[in-house]
Amino acid sequence: MYLLGLDVGTTGCKAVIFTPSGEVFSDAYGEYRLYHRRPEWSELNPEEVWKAVRSTIRSSIQKANVNPGQIAALSTSVLGEAFFPIDRNAEPLYWSMTTFDARAEEQTRWWEENFGADEMYRITGQPLTSSMPIYTLPKIQWLYENEPELFKKAWMFLCWEDYINLKLCGRPVMDYSVATRTMVFDIRKKVWSSDILEEAQIDESLLPEVKPSGTVIGEVSGKAAQEVGLSKGTLVVTGGHDQPCGALGAGITETGPAMDATGTVECIAVVQKELALTERMRSQGFAVHCYVVDGKYFMLGFNPSGGVILRWFRDNFAEKDKDNARKMGIDVYDILTGEASKAPPGSVELFLLPYFEGSGTPTFNRKARGVFLGLTLAHSKREVVRAILEGLTYELRSNIEAIGEHGTDITELRAIGGGAKSKFWLQLKADITERKVVVPNVTESAAMGAAILAGVGAKIYGSAEEAVKKVYSVKDTYTPTAEASSIYDRYYGLYKKLYGEFEKTFEEIEKIRRR
Amino acid sequence: MYLLGLDVGTTGCKAVIFTPSGEVFSDAYGEYRLYHRRPEWSELNPEEVWKAVRSTIRSSIQKANVNPGQIAALSTSVLGEAFFPIDRNAEPLYWSMTTFDARAEEQTRWWEENFGADEMYRITGQPLTSSMPIYTLPKIQWLYENEPELFKKAWMFLCWEDYINLKLCGRPVMDYSVATRTMVFDIRKKVWSSDILEEAQIDESLLPEVKPSGTVIGEVSGKAAQEVGLSKGTLVVTGGHDQPCGALGAGITETGPAMDATGTVECIAVVQKELALTERMRSQGFAVHCYVVDGKYFMLGFNPSGGVILRWFRDNFAEKDKDNARKMGIDVYDILTGEASKAPPGSVELFLLPYFEGSGTPTFNRKARGVFLGLTLAHSKREVVRAILEGLTYELRSNIEAIGEHGTDITELRAIGGGAKSKFWLQLKADITERKVVVPNVTESAAMGAAILAGVGAKIYGSAEEAVKKVYSVKDTYTPTAEASSIYDRYYGLYKKLYGEFEKTFEEIEKIRRR
Repeated sequence: MYLLGLDVGTTGCKAVIFTPSGEVFSDAYGEYRLYHRRPEWSELNPEEVWKAVRSTIRSSIQKANVNPGQIAALSTSVLGEAFFPIDRNAEPLYWSMTTFDARAEEQTRWWEENFGADEMYRITGQPLTSSMPIYTLPKIQWLYENEPELFKKAWMFLCWEDYINLKLCGRPVMDYSVATRTMVFDIRKKVWSSDILEEAQIDESLLPEVKPSGTVIGEVSGKAAQEVGLSKGTLVVTGGHDQPCGALGAGITETGPAMDATGTVECIAVVQKELALTERMRSQGFAVHCYVVDGKYFMLGFNPSGGVILRWFRDNFAEKDKDNARKMGIDVYDILTGEASKAPPGSVELFLLPYFEGSGTPTFNRKARGVFLGLTLAHSKREVVRAILEGLTYELRSNIEAIGEHGTDITELRAIGGGAKSKFWLQLKADITERKVVVPNVTESAAMGAAILAGVGAKIYGSAEEAVKKVYSVKDTYTPTAEASSIYDRYYGLYKKLYGEFEKTFEEIEKIRRR
Repeated sequence: MYLLGLDVGTTGCKAVIFTPSGEVFSDAYGEYRLYHRRPEWSELNPEEVWKAVRSTIRSSIQKANVNPGQIAALSTSVLGEAFFPIDRNAEPLYWSMTTFDARAEEQTRWWEENFGADEMYRITGQPLTSSMPIYTLPKIQWLYENEPELFKKAWMFLCWEDYINLKLCGRPVMDYSVATRTMVFDIRKKVWSSDILEEAQIDESLLPEVKPSGTVIGEVSGKAAQEVGLSKGTLVVTGGHDQPCGALGAGITETGPAMDATGTVECIAVVQKELALTERMRSQGFAVHCYVVDGKYFMLGFNPSGGVILRWFRDNFAEKDKDNARKMGIDVYDILTGEASKAPPGSVELFLLPYFEGSGTPTFNRKARGVFLGLTLAHSKREVVRAILEGLTYELRSNIEAIGEHGTDITELRAIGGGAKSKFWLQLKADITERKVVVPNVTESAAMGAAILAGVGAKIYGSAEEAVKKVYSVKDTYTPTAEASSIYDRYYGLYKKLYGEFEKTFEEIEKIRRR
């Protein structure tokens, strides 16, 4: 008996077949294009995504070389916010706007001014700000205002989880965590918020049914079975938003350990001891979701420029290292972090404020910008790379401290994503945050979280907690070293003051930009 | 009839033979090593320098293929501050500490505390600060305190001009401008300051005779003629400090035009309308010299990190461009400035504070550090290189404004040094400073200034002013373009506020460094 976890992201999807004890039995990956038809737009073509999902599931089964009938159930982890309208035949009527599609700024501002960010936070747990028009709600309104004809044809507005569920078993059902990211969901009552729907003049019938994660909602239909290569009758189970799925895949079911997911963006997330939603949390940009373990709440911090700064550096300032890596058949990031490891802790008083895409939690300012501070001729490439890694990690510590102030003490970090490949960076995280950093054996955490939910739905596990005991295991552990921690503590003492020093200047730069 | 200008710098010397109308007839270059026997030391070995001077003069004559008797006179332009003790046989007793030899910090502080920076400025025109222990005076004291035996053997303490003059004609005579850089010279009375000598307990007989620039002090001796290849009897004429010699070579004899000399360091200098020495000028780090045109005063601003930041960028972050330049047989700086020219003015709101070696005039803070501010993922290498050039040029504008506040309106910039090779940068300077920028035909300005002084001494020219009319000519002119200037004006408006915003942070970084 196997479980399939499907993970649909912004630029590609993964299908991973797991054994019930949590081993990866096979996996497959499919890509699709992220379109930017206008500079501020960021869209997926639903047909291309669905095509990739079909072939990816199929090739994961082929690679596993198992009878599809042995796959008991599947669940889907999806990118948040992305949605699109469909007609009665489940045909997409528009492309799917993803998180960073920024067209709905005006609509987002409308909610800020007419509904209030505080009220919105109280209901949905999501920090509303017109500087980050990421949520589904204002984007639906944008469609209403800009594509009224199309809006009339819409039967439903679906996110990716419910769309895939619809395609697989005929029922467009979404789980609470994905619902949370629409900014229409009441995270306490666990229903679509009537207040918000009324204000938005959206009929609830346009939105899908919502169920807890791990709920069986149907079986793979004959048609779908043919399309994706699964057996007819395979259980379709609600999955979740990719961040909480990743946390569950990293074995997090209780308050204490934090997920530290370092990809393009870096996300840090915990399970709250009990639901907390304060004005200060909102102003700092922390989102609170219904977690994929029912009854629990998930608090999400983020740094929008995580690994992407390293990629920026690699592509612009390490061209020769890239060539060398290619010739030597190694990863250029290993060359760069290897260089960084030769620089001293603190990078000879060089600081990076990693706000290349604005700052995330806890300073939460879209206008913030990246800063290298303290440059001298003594800084070579190795100090600059190390300063990038250190800056990103000071920002992580700043999030850990903020989450602590909001009532959740982080006991350890569970590192997932691309950043978890660098031993140097992992040790740096341990030293700077003064927390134990562990790397789980399974790196495909979001797919694993989805598979756990599939297994809960299929009753292979009695609960998510029980599942985690069976499937979660640790590959590597990094513990803080006292000497390095004490050096970083001094550097961090200055780092945490820097944002405040620069805030006015970011404002001035924005004025120049807007002129 | 020809004139020879010798230019002795920190890492090499040039001998240039000019026609009386200012054409370069031949030139030669010789290198020597800058030693760092300890990290904060920076020294020349006098024997190596004198050897290079000899062979360089000789090869300039050989290249010119003229009878040495046709060379009427020579003068020498030298690096400032560098000195060494000699014995009665003119044998050097110690190596020559150059400007950035930082060992005399304690002695410099002693002067600050016991004599006062304001009083020192009033007498010498030189801004005393223990954070920049560059001058000769405290370094002589260092020798007294640390090498007392050697001090007893010393017959005289000479700078490079007077040492070379001694070697050539037997008389160790220094001009007013080189004397200015010792911090012992009274620039109003034009004598060694008895107050300073008394306080220092230095006997005046240890210092050389001082004469105005362009004064004949002797003839090349038979011995020297054999050593350097000149004719016995060639007139030896006082030259000057390399910065004022460069300004004279750029045709500056009156207030109005400024020299903008962009090498490793960038210097901006003007002739003052009348001597001005204010407390504010001192705190901003402006030095005032006796100029090489007698009776006039020369005001010198500087940015310690000029072209050196471009070199830093090239060596650390443009390795592939360097390889490509080598393959293509072109200058890597041309590749980099070519890239920069493709970025928009303002580099998409990216700012550089070019304080990689502390800030020079007018913020004058050794603790200042380099900052890249405003980084986003939209910035590629071209924006970063452009931001470097723009940052350096905002700093130039800041100096122009400060010099204006101190009573000297700069009418145009005369660009010399390596930076004057880049058409892109020159246009940028015109646009940002809103000044006409001209590039003289002769790029070896310091050697040319020395040759002019040699010609004045030899009475080939009636005066420096008359000489300039004959020898100075313009190769290229860059005029500000209104559109670009208006964009930069907006950027500069923010730039000039930035130093103040960062000042406290630089202090904090210094605390971390010193721990």
